[in-house]
This record gives sequence, structure tokens and C-alpha cells, in this order.
Amino acid sequence: MINRRDFIKKTSILGVSSFLLPSFSLGNGLDKKEKIRVGLIGVGLRGRATLSLLLNRNDVHVSSICDIDINSIDASNKMFSEYNKKKPKVFDKGEYAYQDLLKRKDLDAVIISTPWRWHVKMAIDAMREKKYVGMEVSGALNIKECWDLVNVHEETGTHLFILENVCYRRDIMAVLNMVRKDLFGELIHLECGYQHDLRFVKFNDGETVYAPGAEFGEKALSEAKWRTKHSVDRNGDLYPTHGFGPVAQILNINSGNQCDYLTSTASKSRGLREYILKNGGKNHPNANVKFKLGDVVTTVIKTKNKETITLQHDTNLPRPYSLGFKVQGTNGIWMDINDSIYIEGKTSGHSWESDKEYMKTYDHPLWKKYESLADGAGHGGMDWFLMNDFVESVKNNIEPPLDVYDCATMRVITPLSENSIKNNGAPQKFPDFTKGKWRTRKNKFPLNI
Amino acid sequence: MINRRDFIKKTSILGVSSFLLPSFSLGNGLDKKEKIRVGLIGVGLRGRATLSLLLNRNDVHVSSICDIDINSIDASNKMFSEYNKKKPKVFDKGEYAYQDLLKRKDLDAVIISTPWRWHVKMAIDAMREKKYVGMEVSGALNIKECWDLVNVHEETGTHLFILENVCYRRDIMAVLNMVRKDLFGELIHLECGYQHDLRFVKFNDGETVYAPGAEFGEKALSEAKWRTKHSVDRNGDLYPTHGFGPVAQILNINSGNQCDYLTSTASKSRGLREYILKNGGKNHPNANVKFKLGDVVTTVIKTKNKETITLQHDTNLPRPYSLGFKVQGTNGIWMDINDSIYIEGKTSGHSWESDKEYMKTYDHPLWKKYESLADGAGHGGMDWFLMNDFVESVKNNIEPPLDVYDCATMRVITPLSENSIKNNGAPQKFPDFTKGKWRTRKNKFPLNI
Repeated sequence: MINRRDFIKKTSILGVSSFLLPSFSLGNGLDKKEKIRVGLIGVGLRGRATLSLLLNRNDVHVSSICDIDINSIDASNKMFSEYNKKKPKVFDKGEYAYQDLLKRKDLDAVIISTPWRWHVKMAIDAMREKKYVGMEVSGALNIKECWDLVNVHEETGTHLFILENVCYRRDIMAVLNMVRKDLFGELIHLECGYQHDLRFVKFNDGETVYAPGAEFGEKALSEAKWRTKHSVDRNGDLYPTHGFGPVAQILNINSGNQCDYLTSTASKSRGLREYILKNGGKNHPNANVKFKLGDVVTTVIKTKNKETITLQHDTNLPRPYSLGFKVQGTNGIWMDINDSIYIEGKTSGHSWESDKEYMKTYDHPLWKKYESLADGAGHGGMDWFLMNDFVESVKNNIEPPLDVYDCATMRVITPLSENSIKNNGAPQKFPDFTKGKWRTRKNKFPLNI
Repeated sequence: MINRRDFIKKTSILGVSSFLLPSFSLGNGLDKKEKIRVGLIGVGLRGRATLSLLLNRNDVHVSSICDIDINSIDASNKMFSEYNKKKPKVFDKGEYAYQDLLKRKDLDAVIISTPWRWHVKMAIDAMREKKYVGMEVSGALNIKECWDLVNVHEETGTHLFILENVCYRRDIMAVLNMVRKDLFGELIHLECGYQHDLRFVKFNDGETVYAPGAEFGEKALSEAKWRTKHSVDRNGDLYPTHGFGPVAQILNINSGNQCDYLTSTASKSRGLREYILKNGGKNHPNANVKFKLGDVVTTVIKTKNKETITLQHDTNLPRPYSLGFKVQGTNGIWMDINDSIYIEGKTSGHSWESDKEYMKTYDHPLWKKYESLADGAGHGGMDWFLMNDFVESVKNNIEPPLDVYDCATMRVITPLSENSIKNNGAPQKFPDFTKGKWRTRKNKFPLNI
């Protein structure tokens, strides 16, 4: 959050800085819009991080915002003032106010940053209203949801961009570049995950976000209001996209490759209850809540091209943050936990080598080009690249680089993983959302415009 | 190997150094032998590493050796001279010569360091001849083999010590110490594996061990003669013990805990064929050999106490060596890949901390006591501790700290993993070799004598 706040501060000092905007080529011609009108559904912490990126651009007009939380609306309005931008239309009358926003004709696109259970319903409603959809990441509630997204996209022809920001992380894009330049040889095994101590997100004291506490649900603030309930009710990889999204692009999932099946195994659940006991004591009303979510959930995926992927979900225990990336091929291996690489014929001896020089040499051209613009944007700059690809996709009304099929595949891991765990590790087949088109589809990541 | 050679040189300069021997307490009384007579079945590279440790001790008389390879016999005999020890009886007349060795009355124990397919047959024959058995590690050929070991032990009352040396690795024993002192809280998830580029072991040029080549089987030397064939015929975790052995002790498997089930997933197989092409060219007779073994095999185990274990087998690709240990509990996490630890309330911030100070503070008492004796012994000293526990177990004729049930559980991972892979990741139940006794058995590792 510090990055985001710094960015807002910095850009508000600079004012509306048109010199910050890169000049874009005209792309594919006739359909190209010079400026797009965007509505934001959900302007909580994540929605406002996106808002700040959009307010900073001259090719975007944020014309509407929607939220049921008056504080979030107020905070957003304040940002429009800071950026000297025209105040948006506000939709805040109940949970279905977003449908009024979707009916407006002065909107090209919407970005959905709401609690998980609303993502798909809102995206489907938006596609039916012909709004280009940007949807925040989450795991699906069930398999049908994923098919619904795909089917409505195919019926309406409206595009959906799954906003998986880690695909744009600088080291990840450099590694993607290395893979495409064949540095690792043929890929064999990849690892990734979401290893993030979220106890301070899942609970707070009901007064300050991220303050230690034992509250969740109605009495809590921000994500703890709704996110924690998923840990009570569900056992599976609840948040697969930050790990799997980048790996899927590296492995060309849905464009020459496909996921075949997965198995998932969950450990016991201890971390969340211990945290409640520590912060609320044994007489706290939440002290006897039973959490279904295993503290560590390990999923192994086999692809149609016979690579393996290990995916981990680990959000209830004290630990340093890591997405645990590893990329291994016939010619070498990279891992992020120790920023190290080993390439046969290049690395001397049999020890790990720092990946620093490789990261420079293979820095992705997009990062080289836009580094200064991304500087200070959320999550180390990657959010800038994500939002830039989104805006460009909308301007050109083209298939996004992370599309509805990618979205369905990323999200379906959650219910498949829940099913596997319920059945003591039984393998679960991935649906083929592309209905065979994966064999001929081309990888579109990142946008080349 | 360098360590071992240095050790032999050093000790041969010192002569038979009785001052190198620690003084032991008399243990459990009447049965205690002051000196034991040991026979070695298999004196290849691994067998001779063990031989050098035994020749260096005054409480061991190596009275017999057995091998079908005359070079190995010669090299062993030479070592007896170097140590000024009485030449052993030699058994070298064919594959069943070991049975003549077993019939001798002047033997208390045997150590089996032969190719994998002989381990169980030899161990069973040895138990029937009432010889205390030390058996080198490998994966089982099938599930029945594991039951056979257990059943013959129970019929004969003869003990079997599974010689898993990594259980004695200094950092692993320190971490075991940390676990037992509750530093990590309740254990949740562990990782381990055998990530070792064995291409130089699986192939050579038929003239020099470890020289680059494309030969295996009859035309090759040393392990490539027999070990590589397992990669042709089998797809599974072929060598689970170095990772799983230590983890099993940390989790009290067979003594309060038990493995419940596993799933295994194998990647495609590319590394070995590429190595043959590189070193032998596409016209080499081995260029078209099909290897069943996937380059990376990932196994996930669930225990009865609901911890999860991830185990990896990765021996066909260029990569730095690692056993990939990770130990995670409700209070913190340690991993060996970056020698780092995070303990809630101790580690400041949300970043990894070097484990260096922890390794000192929690150094296992055995390592503190015998460090100088282990110095220079195989694999960083751990082989000394392994052999010391073996010798003391035999002297006292007691259950070994790594016994036949541990052996069966470690080894059965291989056929279970093969079955899971054959069935696209279907979970496989672990047999309960203790027939329920795991609930009351006590952990005996390491020997407390």
C-alpha cells in the first residue's frame, strides 16, 4: 500500500502530467479510440489503486464509480479532486446499483474490483451490456461459473481481461523472455504459489485496517469483512492466479498447451484459530470458529504437453512473502526464492549463480521502454503495465492478452482443488474451455502494440 | 569422494588411532559387546566409504568382505593394509557368494551396499542367519518387498538398520532439535527431495567413472552398470529416502504418526536422452533408448496427523544439488535452499533471517560431542554419526534408531509413486507396516547411548 500512496502523492504533486504519457502507435486502425470511458465497480483499497493509475492517464476518462461503502466513495471522490479530474457519476444505492452503471451509454469499459462472490455475476452482466470487462483476480466458486464466463463472452462477443498483475512483474517478464529465447531449453517443471501471511488481512480489530485483531465478517473492516469467510467454508487453493497466471503464460496454456489434471492436498488448519486466540483470547466469540481451509494447500498440475506445475496456497501462518516461482527446463533452472539461476554451459561449477546479470540482459522490452512511467505504481510497477495493456486493449477493442479462457483456466483451479481435497487427493480433469481451440490459438501476452 | 580419500589418507598417516575413539558408557549391560565382527556385502564405491569408517574404529573387526568385482576386492584389501588391519575373508565366487559369508559364525553384523535389486533378498537372508543387518538406502521394487522385510524381522527377531545418512546431517539434526524444543510450534508442512543431476552417474564412457559418456549397462562402469536401467523401466520417485528419511524422523512417522496416502505426478522424460545425444551423438546405440522416468517427479504425502509433505525426485537435468528441505509450523519456517529461517516473535520484520545463529544455538548435542571424530568422514561428517549409531546398536543388540518399519515406509514410496503415476495421479494408501503399533511406539532417533 505504501507504493500506491507514494504514487498518489507524487502524481498529485505533479498534477495531470501529460508528459508522463507515452505516445502510442495507432494500432489496428478504424476501431481505435483515442480516449476511453471507464466505470469502476468497487472502489475499495484495490479499486482505488486502479483508480489512481487511470486518473494519471490522459487517454482514460473515469466517468462512473460504484460502491456500497460510502467511505470508499468519499475517498475516491477526493482522488478525482487531487488529480483535477471531473467528478464521476456515483452509483451507491445497494448491491445492484452496478447494474444502473452498466446501462449507461457513456461507458466503453468497466473494471470490477469487488468481493470475490460478485466477480462473475458482474462480469456477465457487463458483457451482456457490451462493456469491455476488466475483472480482478480470484478463484471460482464453482466450475459452472467458469463456463458461464466463457459462454457469455462467446454469445456477446464482448471481451474480458483477467487482471492478473503478477504476469507483468519485471523478473517474471524477464524470465518469460528467457524462456522464449530458449535459455532453459524445453520446459519440464514449474513451481509457483501464494505464500503470504494474510492473518492481518483476514482479521482486524474492527477499527483500523491491518491492525491486529480477532474480528472478521460484519464487525471487521475491508477484506476481513468477506474474505475470511472463504477460509471458514472452503478447503482448497482459494487464490491460485498470482502463481498460476504467470506460469500459464510461460507454458502457453490455452495457446498450444492445456492443463490436463490436478491433485490437491491440504494440511490441517491451525494458523487462523491460533491467531484469534492470540489476539482475542479464548473467550472471544470467534475463538471456536472452525476453519476448513488447510494452512498449506499443495496442488500439482500436469499439462497436455507433459510439464508439471506445483502450486502452493499458504496464507494462515507466519512466514515471509513469496510467490515461490521456479522454472526448470532441459538446459537450466531459475528460482526466485534465492534470486538464482543455473544454465548449463554458462554457469560455472555446480552451484547457483545470482540471476542479476540475466535479469538485466533479458529485461523485457516493455519494461525497458516504460520503466520510468511504471516507477512508483502499485506492486513494484507491474500494475502500471497491467493497466496499460488493459487500456490499450479497450482502445483497440481487441482480444486481451489475458482473456476469458485464461481467466476460466486460472479460476477453475479453486473448485477443482476443493474437489480433489474432498476426495483425498483424487485427480481432477481440467475442462477445456477453448473446446479444442487451444491447439491453434497463439499466445497474445503481453500486448504487442 | 574427495572427503573420503582425504580421510583415508589422514587416518593412514595417523595409523590405528585409538585416541580417536570416544569412550562409551556400557549401555544396557549383559548383552553388550566390546567389539563386533562385521561383514561387508558389496565393496564398491559406497561400500568402501563405509569400510574406511569401520577400519578406523577399534570396536569393529571387519572379518569378511564380498563382491563379484575383483577390482573392488583388490581396492578393499589395499585399505586393510593401509590401516594395518588383518586381511578379511573374501567371498567373490558369483552372485550368491554372499550366502557363504552369511553362514559364518564369526560375524555379528553385515552391511549391504550392493545394487538396489539385491538389497531386500540379501537383508532377508542375513536376518534368517541372525546377522544384525545394515542396509543401504534405495526405493523398493514393489510393495511386497517391504512387507517381506518386516515379516522376516518379526519372525527372526533380527534387527535391520536402514542406513539413511542424511538423517544425521548437521543442519537436519539441529532442525530436529529445534522442532523438539518447539521452536516451530505445531508442524504443518514439510518439503524435501532428491534434486541431484545424476547424468554423470547414470552414464560414463566405459573407461572412467564419472567421465562424460553415453554408456550404461554392461559397457559402463560402477553405478551406470545397473542404476540407469531403473530410469529406463520405471517412472516414479526412485530414490525417496534422503529427503523423506529425515522428514519422517522430524514428523515421528511410525512413532505417534503415520503416512496416510500420497499422490505422484511425473513430468515428461527428456534429460537422459539429450545427454546421450550430446555425448554419443544420434548414431550411438543408446540414442533411441526410451526412458520411462519423468525428469521431475513430484509426490505429495498426507500424514495421519494431517501434516503434508512434498517430495521431489529430479535427477536427469542440469541443476545444482539440493535436498530441498523445508520445515513449516504454526510458529515459523526454515528452508535449506537459502539457509534461512523465520520465527514469529524472534525474526524482525517480514523477511527471511540467516539460520546461522540458530544452527549454532540448536546444534545437536551429538554433533557437539563427536564433531572432531566426524571431521573428514563422508558427506560432511554425517556418515560417521550413521556408522557410530550402527556400531553401537549392534554392540548392544538393540532396536536401531532407523528400524525395519522406517525402512519399509521409506522404501514403499517408490512403488506407491509408480502406481500413482500409472493411474494419472490417483492417491495411493500407505500400508501400515507397524500394524497399529505406530500409535504407541516411541521415536528412537538418534540413538541415546
